[in-house]
Amino acid sequence: MNRVAVEQKVLSENQRLALELRERFRQNQVFCVNLISSPGSGKTSLLERTLATFPRDTRVAVLTGDIQTENDARRLSTFGFPARQIVTGGTCHLDARMIDNHLAGWDLADLDLLFIENVGNLVCPSSYDLGEHAKIVMLSVTEGEDKPLKYPSIFFKSELMVLNKIDLLPYVNFDVAQARANAERVHPGMDILELSCTTGAGFDKWMDWLRRRREQAIATATVNG
Amino acid sequence: MNRVAVEQKVLSENQRLALELRERFRQNQVFCVNLISSPGSGKTSLLERTLATFPRDTRVAVLTGDIQTENDARRLSTFGFPARQIVTGGTCHLDARMIDNHLAGWDLADLDLLFIENVGNLVCPSSYDLGEHAKIVMLSVTEGEDKPLKYPSIFFKSELMVLNKIDLLPYVNFDVAQARANAERVHPGMDILELSCTTGAGFDKWMDWLRRRREQAIATATVNG
Repeated sequence: MNRVAVEQKVLSENQRLALELRERFRQNQVFCVNLISSPGSGKTSLLERTLATFPRDTRVAVLTGDIQTENDARRLSTFGFPARQIVTGGTCHLDARMIDNHLAGWDLADLDLLFIENVGNLVCPSSYDLGEHAKIVMLSVTEGEDKPLKYPSIFFKSELMVLNKIDLLPYVNFDVAQARANAERVHPGMDILELSCTTGAGFDKWMDWLRRRREQAIATATVNG
Repeated sequence: MNRVAVEQKVLSENQRLALELRERFRQNQVFCVNLISSPGSGKTSLLERTLATFPRDTRVAVLTGDIQTENDARRLSTFGFPARQIVTGGTCHLDARMIDNHLAGWDLADLDLLFIENVGNLVCPSSYDLGEHAKIVMLSVTEGEDKPLKYPSIFFKSELMVLNKIDLLPYVNFDVAQARANAERVHPGMDILELSCTTGAGFDKWMDWLRRRREQAIATATVNG
């Protein structure tokens, strides 16, 4: 079997498992998002501030992926919600099998919201469906406004682009309008939010987006179920 | 053939071709570096300022990789030195075959220095030898000091860590000493340079490193050849 054939087999096995996960999320009314960005764009910081904002009885959990270290699960578990690390040991993305394995022992009926923080990588994670309702791509203003054009797959597949670190705009050469135009060119109509995990600017809109998008997913699941 | 076997075959074919490239670089006394970082860490900016610093008769060329767009080759060719874009079309790294193909028509005897700018990705490029003398990993201070621990492979394989965007240190929460300690933990004795492609701070040391490392590579090649 050649390389392309093997890759297709791996991807179709992943797709089969992702569909099973999606069905489990639907049955349990768990809204699941898959957060993707370069290393250091602020995925963990977004989750920290989001978890800190939630009331303590929010039914939320986090799976966080990294090549190495349990640092992120440690950071995220301080908020009192379930958080588990997926250490990929060299693999450049999360796949549906890893999600399935790391959900073991959690009762999905106890959850309303599941965050998956992918490995820091703008390329490979875009090929792997994890059964999520929505992919979210995060870009920070220190990375340059050209990134949607250079990494079109993940911007095309994501419903939302979170533009992070807007508190640094005075100090970097970053054209927000151009970044928006580039995202729009790759993915017409995609949602775009500007925020800062450091100052909290823009966070209300992010929390609104999550709430609205979750309600929409659950309503759709109920109609279709 | 299973996935691991196919990956090993692909890697061993790459290794064979990388050895051929390395031998061609040696015979022609071309010092070749492979620049690797996350998207937006400043690889292209480093090359822009480096090319701008060189006298016009410097025998230097650049191959620059991206998933999509010819933007970087356009930016880099304005300095009057040969620069070519490698568009991978979805592949998350450069491989030795792409380098070989894109050197076509260039006489290596005309070059002293070849920069390869890899696809923005801290994971996958670390597995692909391109025949270079040295890998250089770039980290910007906006990305967090934990990255050497989270992405150990590329920090282990790189001779030099360039810590970029130090002009932003007053505005971000980044512990330089900790970043250095993390790099040292993964790769004891690795070279580390701090610089800013925006202000030019630290650039003298970078140009010195390049000159010194090139002389060393050429001297070694002459002794062994």
